Amino acid sequence: MTGKSPGWVVTVKVSPPSLNDNTADADRLINELKPVLKTDYIDIDLSLLKNLPWRLRKFSYQARCVCFNDCGRWKLVGVKSVNDSAICAGIAIDLGTTRVVLRLINLETGEVIDESAFDNPQIAIGPDLLERIHFADNEAGLYKINRLIVDGFNEHISGLCKKSGVHIQDVYLLAVSGNTSMTHLFLGLAPNHIIREPYIPVVNTPNTVLAKDLGIQINDNARIFIFPNVGSYFGGDLISGIIYSGLHQQDEISILVDVGTNAEVVLGNKDWLVACAGAAGPALEGGVSKIGMNAKPGVIDRIMIDPEDGTFDLHTIDELPPKGICGSGMIDMMAQLFLSGMVDIRGKFVASKCGDRLKESDGSRRIVLVPSDDSATGRELSISQVDIDSLMRSKAAMYTILETIARYVGITFDDLSTFYIAGTFGSFINPRSAITIGMIPDLSEETYHSLGNSSLGGAAMILTSREALDEVEGIRDRITYLELNVNQEFMNRFSAAKFLPHTDPSLFPSVKIE
Amino acid sequence: MTGKSPGWVVTVKVSPPSLNDNTADADRLINELKPVLKTDYIDIDLSLLKNLPWRLRKFSYQARCVCFNDCGRWKLVGVKSVNDSAICAGIAIDLGTTRVVLRLINLETGEVIDESAFDNPQIAIGPDLLERIHFADNEAGLYKINRLIVDGFNEHISGLCKKSGVHIQDVYLLAVSGNTSMTHLFLGLAPNHIIREPYIPVVNTPNTVLAKDLGIQINDNARIFIFPNVGSYFGGDLISGIIYSGLHQQDEISILVDVGTNAEVVLGNKDWLVACAGAAGPALEGGVSKIGMNAKPGVIDRIMIDPEDGTFDLHTIDELPPKGICGSGMIDMMAQLFLSGMVDIRGKFVASKCGDRLKESDGSRRIVLVPSDDSATGRELSISQVDIDSLMRSKAAMYTILETIARYVGITFDDLSTFYIAGTFGSFINPRSAITIGMIPDLSEETYHSLGNSSLGGAAMILTSREALDEVEGIRDRITYLELNVNQEFMNRFSAAKFLPHTDPSLFPSVKIE
Repeated sequence: MTGKSPGWVVTVKVSPPSLNDNTADADRLINELKPVLKTDYIDIDLSLLKNLPWRLRKFSYQARCVCFNDCGRWKLVGVKSVNDSAICAGIAIDLGTTRVVLRLINLETGEVIDESAFDNPQIAIGPDLLERIHFADNEAGLYKINRLIVDGFNEHISGLCKKSGVHIQDVYLLAVSGNTSMTHLFLGLAPNHIIREPYIPVVNTPNTVLAKDLGIQINDNARIFIFPNVGSYFGGDLISGIIYSGLHQQDEISILVDVGTNAEVVLGNKDWLVACAGAAGPALEGGVSKIGMNAKPGVIDRIMIDPEDGTFDLHTIDELPPKGICGSGMIDMMAQLFLSGMVDIRGKFVASKCGDRLKESDGSRRIVLVPSDDSATGRELSISQVDIDSLMRSKAAMYTILETIARYVGITFDDLSTFYIAGTFGSFINPRSAITIGMIPDLSEETYHSLGNSSLGGAAMILTSREALDEVEGIRDRITYLELNVNQEFMNRFSAAKFLPHTDPSLFPSVKIE
Repeated sequence: MTGKSPGWVVTVKVSPPSLNDNTADADRLINELKPVLKTDYIDIDLSLLKNLPWRLRKFSYQARCVCFNDCGRWKLVGVKSVNDSAICAGIAIDLGTTRVVLRLINLETGEVIDESAFDNPQIAIGPDLLERIHFADNEAGLYKINRLIVDGFNEHISGLCKKSGVHIQDVYLLAVSGNTSMTHLFLGLAPNHIIREPYIPVVNTPNTVLAKDLGIQINDNARIFIFPNVGSYFGGDLISGIIYSGLHQQDEISILVDVGTNAEVVLGNKDWLVACAGAAGPALEGGVSKIGMNAKPGVIDRIMIDPEDGTFDLHTIDELPPKGICGSGMIDMMAQLFLSGMVDIRGKFVASKCGDRLKESDGSRRIVLVPSDDSATGRELSISQVDIDSLMRSKAAMYTILETIARYVGITFDDLSTFYIAGTFGSFINPRSAITIGMIPDLSEETYHSLGNSSLGGAAMILTSREALDEVEGIRDRITYLELNVNQEFMNRFSAAKFLPHTDPSLFPSVKIE
């Protein structure tokens, strides 16, 4: 038991049995754990009971006990000798639609041992959730898609453990954070009602399940904590993000935004939380334009345009020859095109400013970022007016969602003490560029705080802090979910936001065009 | 939900999901159950979750829910349509060393549907526990002996259900009451420390386990409640007996005695409970003499001896030709031999009174109950002096144990309001005969109350009453277990009790010899 917060491994010494105290082995151990864990009940699985007498005697009645709290009910998960140098491990998992990230953690010290990531194998069924959910509409499909992720976990957990010298039998806890659909597919639960009105998940609070019940090959008694969801469109990854941000503990009001295909937003403080989610469009994730792609080496992630001579200064990840552009690159580009006058406030190309870069074919205009000779693909990298129109809608949707939730609560953006940007994608966004295009409010840059992979971060906290786990349920229950009604008022605000930065420039005083 | 006490089946109506209330199916159902069960948490197994959406919709959001309380933590065990005429069933089980009794119960009405019984298949390994425990000393032996009882359960549960027209998938709960060793062998837990100093079970409180984890083929989510034990020699069958007797709820002091190879005794009232157990010897169960056997057709269970002419009036079960004698028959016989003067106060044959019935061979005397011509076996049925000496030791041990526990608590037998005799065997004992030989105290016959199969009775109560289940743990925790020290004082009392009825006849004023 080390670290700031009491963790899940408790070392206890049990008095050996005698004629004067013939309490059973299991109850003897449990009786020592009860005061430490401050509980009246601790469950032990039958399979753990089976070799407990042998272990206690071999360990001279002293043991490191891995315990876990399942909604107030403690479970004894593992019993190890104090002399065994093997660590007791847990794995925090960000179960993304596209990418899955594993973080191996020492449950006793809280230390991160290693990390690995892999593409969600369900991509083979379909890159987006809708295709996967349709595929899972029948039992065979659900089974297959469930096996894909379970097998993926088993392969990569095993690989991560091997690399780190951790035996998979020493992995006792998993904390899995994912959106509602991904969580359902992982649990083998039919997600079909999630996408059909009135959009009902099978379960909001799956709590803790036995790893072996899900086919996850780690310790036989290992538990998997699954983050709860608020509904079909507000998943456990967001709850995990809230935990990670600490927003729910603060006196002042903050906002947390996960920018992606869906914009998921939580606004609140230690007393209240309001959330909403809405389609923001794939443009923000770099998935809309023909050259859009996720951030990886060779992808354009930053752009500067000289307002004087219109030269483009492109930056690619790892500075490799360019092969595409990611979402944050698109936002940067859009801001720079606007600041250099190459697009007008409606987001339309201004031919006089674009110069040679502007091309036209089949009645459609495009601006060339990289000529074919300079690209890694041998093909021209360009952004069309259609791509830009799509980005305009996405950024307008995002701003309108933020405006809507703020109005619902009755605050202005100036009331926000912190604007958390969650998610891996979000961490690459240049807030200055996002403000410039009117995607996010015109707050001082210090207000913006990028969390990185907050879904993974929150899951890791579950494995290292009992308090974090205790907070999860309260957060979920405290969230008021605001159903976004796309009514006339919303549409009016959306239309007003479809300008750079906005039809009302007074909302963005810091954005000044030469 | 019917019956006097709220049972385990709760019918609830769930509001169908809508855009205004997108709570998940599982949480929607749980939220309805929470106030009914007065709890904050109800666990649902993954396998039940999997078809819950389908069920709720098919059942028009109205369901009979089988719920069970595992030490304060509620579990949803089954969900059935209100229009389904199939009953929700449970089975109470008395898991005896020799005999296993099953009682099929309607969980909604509490009604007994049917009963069946079978010989414990582990008898094939050994008739007594010690042999079985030694057999289970290695993994293969434990596995085999565990499978014997599990297979026996599966066969007989299936048979009982078929006979009653109950589908085994509609059996949701089992309550199993057995001694500590039998319980361990059923759970597949190594019993080897039970018989070795300091006599430590693996577990005192196994609580509730999943039926499928034990290989019991009933409903996939069915739970098995296992009565807790106080130690290696005070098993769950006794706790079940206490529940059934109601001793633990009474103002006045009562005693409960399970008479068998071990004499297990509980003394107490609603405020305190003291228990002890000690070897009483197989004589009391009819297992010691050559002709001793368990009660079954053709076995002598009652004897009258005419004090005038010494004629024997034997009664056999079902009045079939005699083939042996059971424990209650032995006690009857002993009392009658004493009253007729055929044995003296030391339990030795009085040749002058026995007449022709007394035979002698190889230096050993015996009294003939049935000559070979009249017996069902074609062999003489007789009781030797050795058999009688053994019975004398057994009855003396029983009385000494009762005396010891009463002295420990500081009461006299006259303080007892009820003397409960538990167990199937006990129910056949004629208290008058047992008093005559000084096996039990000289109380008025109304004080004696035979409970029949109290182990089964208590298990059945668990399936029909939430209160009964709630009481189990409190009873177990309240019991002070008195370790019988076979010291000089005990031996002195034992020696004094090895007379008919006792060296101190004033203890048995009602026993008068002509």
